[in-house]
Amino acid sequence: MVPHLTTALTGPLLDLERRFLDAMPTIEHWFRTQWLEHAVPFYASVDLRNSGFKLAPVDTNLFPGGFNNLNPDFLPLCVHAMQSAVEKICPEARGVLLIPENHTRNMFYLQNVAQIVRILKQSGMRVRIGSLLPEIKQATTIELPGGGTLVLEPLVRQGNRIGLEGFDPCVVLLNNDLSGGAPEILKNLEQEVYPPLSAGWYTRRKSQHFTAYDRVAGEFAALLDIDPWLINPYFATCNQIDFHTRAGEECLAAQVDAILQKMRIKYIEYGVKNDPFVIVKADAGTYGMGIMTVKDASEITGLNRKQRNKMAVVKEGLAVSDVLVQEGVYSFEDINGAVAEPVVYMIDHYVVGGFYRVHTGRGVDQNLNAPGMHFEPLAFKDCCTMPNPDCEPDDAPNRFYAYGVVSRLALLAASLELEAAANPQ
Amino acid sequence: MVPHLTTALTGPLLDLERRFLDAMPTIEHWFRTQWLEHAVPFYASVDLRNSGFKLAPVDTNLFPGGFNNLNPDFLPLCVHAMQSAVEKICPEARGVLLIPENHTRNMFYLQNVAQIVRILKQSGMRVRIGSLLPEIKQATTIELPGGGTLVLEPLVRQGNRIGLEGFDPCVVLLNNDLSGGAPEILKNLEQEVYPPLSAGWYTRRKSQHFTAYDRVAGEFAALLDIDPWLINPYFATCNQIDFHTRAGEECLAAQVDAILQKMRIKYIEYGVKNDPFVIVKADAGTYGMGIMTVKDASEITGLNRKQRNKMAVVKEGLAVSDVLVQEGVYSFEDINGAVAEPVVYMIDHYVVGGFYRVHTGRGVDQNLNAPGMHFEPLAFKDCCTMPNPDCEPDDAPNRFYAYGVVSRLALLAASLELEAAANPQ
Repeated sequence: MVPHLTTALTGPLLDLERRFLDAMPTIEHWFRTQWLEHAVPFYASVDLRNSGFKLAPVDTNLFPGGFNNLNPDFLPLCVHAMQSAVEKICPEARGVLLIPENHTRNMFYLQNVAQIVRILKQSGMRVRIGSLLPEIKQATTIELPGGGTLVLEPLVRQGNRIGLEGFDPCVVLLNNDLSGGAPEILKNLEQEVYPPLSAGWYTRRKSQHFTAYDRVAGEFAALLDIDPWLINPYFATCNQIDFHTRAGEECLAAQVDAILQKMRIKYIEYGVKNDPFVIVKADAGTYGMGIMTVKDASEITGLNRKQRNKMAVVKEGLAVSDVLVQEGVYSFEDINGAVAEPVVYMIDHYVVGGFYRVHTGRGVDQNLNAPGMHFEPLAFKDCCTMPNPDCEPDDAPNRFYAYGVVSRLALLAASLELEAAANPQ
Repeated sequence: MVPHLTTALTGPLLDLERRFLDAMPTIEHWFRTQWLEHAVPFYASVDLRNSGFKLAPVDTNLFPGGFNNLNPDFLPLCVHAMQSAVEKICPEARGVLLIPENHTRNMFYLQNVAQIVRILKQSGMRVRIGSLLPEIKQATTIELPGGGTLVLEPLVRQGNRIGLEGFDPCVVLLNNDLSGGAPEILKNLEQEVYPPLSAGWYTRRKSQHFTAYDRVAGEFAALLDIDPWLINPYFATCNQIDFHTRAGEECLAAQVDAILQKMRIKYIEYGVKNDPFVIVKADAGTYGMGIMTVKDASEITGLNRKQRNKMAVVKEGLAVSDVLVQEGVYSFEDINGAVAEPVVYMIDHYVVGGFYRVHTGRGVDQNLNAPGMHFEPLAFKDCCTMPNPDCEPDDAPNRFYAYGVVSRLALLAASLELEAAANPQ
């Protein structure tokens, strides 16, 4: 069950993990005090990259899919964490309205929805699923592969309350990232909505997340007396890009160059022999669309039409105008020869599981969130919540403790980001 | 890993479990609101008896040993629950002083202590062990079978703070049931002590616990519209008993008779063909000492000297003067032909695991907490937190949901009991 990891364990990461393990009481205490000051997001998943010399988050999803990819042994952890989440936000909650993505044919996604329903039910909640799809005009049963069914029902709004026929929920849980905008039917509700509408990709920006992460990583690095770069990728943004008309290309090329320059200095400092690369991606949006690996600024000005078309749109056909340029973090983890990156799941502030995203057709410097990827669940005994201070830092449970720490730093950044979105200055 | 259960699945218990499963959202909501009003005990274990027609707690331990008997797969659940407990009582906590029982040669018990230390450490706490034993005058290392060590250190009191040399903890965790009284060195401390000294057996009475349980079970039964007797054993007390001089025997015989009478009426109502029996045990104290099965009041007046000597003293040689007469609950669960009873563990208000106490030499109407018992861990997939509403009530995970519910009722009773002890009227 335990994936074999061929992580490049050169100096710094071992040092980093050793520091995490030694400082565990300090770290856990720091997180506890952070969660006293900041409201934790309802749930999240974080994509990590581990390059041996660096361990960093590269994407934080506030509407996580993929709960079906977690090791089934993690279910009780999910249930505990969900009970804690529900208690915190609304001890009165009994009825939860779950609003998923508008995928009625993507069985992988629907199995994720079924798993979220299972976790909620086992936490003692009444759960029903409301669909934003206009074609869902009555309760519609979908058979799932491997048994079980889901019932999608049309949403019914009465005044400022949303529900289903015969179901007046006290909480709305979104598993829809709102790439297409905040639906009118969900605005100004009396009920609590988690995550808030302002966490949707129609307004959320990766750069805001990583701005908040900068702050969190800086504070955490100071606490542990480490170089924040070891857990934090450089980034920059370009706005008003139009890939079709090539507007803004110079800005993009300049930012790429600037980040590559900064990386070269760090690579020399840490004796890293690899070529630096950056990832260019849409500042809003998800599903691994509109993402490109770049090793030289000249690649930006030399994009052909096909490449530009690919970068120009993301999910739901949205045009890309804001672009994030992010330091690329090599993934030197592999499973059976294929490149792998860990994805860590959290409910409330608890790490509840994770898996490796594996792609047999991609390189160590490429985005793995692409067709052809598959998932390897983290085995239970490797759960990120369970370091063993008496073992070596490269023991699997300890490696995963570091993953849990960095993922929770990204979760905290998401918390700051949502606070800023709720109280714009 | 899953013990084969030959539970006597006659009518009522299936009904009861079906009701628990159907009412799960109501039950969980009720528990959530209870925990808003009442401080949950730090940890607890509850002995249950399942007679097919009845499922009831018979003992609630507020200083649980036996964490080493839990399935190792439960460890992450324990860590989550411990994090929650620590956050609630003291987010500032980093240093925990654990005070165990004075057993330095009982390796089973010391492995329990090692497991509690492991849970605390993995929750990010600094933990050291302080011993009440006068012979521990300096740090003393004990080798554990199967590897690992424990270090016992002498307690150091300075003013109103307790600690160890070079260790000033912010929280004291007792795993010592204080049968011998509240030690002077632990009185009037500035630090928080969990559980409070008043939870110790020197002052705690089982009858107070079951008085509180009466109230909890009554309220819960009303919520579910069930007969409270199905989850609640009758009990009565006799004080000023002296088994040596036979003082108080008449009171005891009368109480035994009264309870047997009430049971006969219920047995007729529910068509139970077995003979009713009661358990006579010390109202204070633990470790399964001073316990007797009685089927007729005449047995009380006919006790021989050996039997009376056995009943007269409990742990640490304390004389028994207060006696609890408790309705006996048959255990119709067996594992490989031996009688078994479930023991459920909780940290904070989370069910974190359990095991079966099994005794090959005891009958269905006897106390199993006796030399010769052994333990069968509940397999992870049977964890009490995880009912599956789509399955039949006699599926293993559902059976264990019922165990988790009844255990939490006992936990809530312990909470009321501790409140009453802290604010005597």
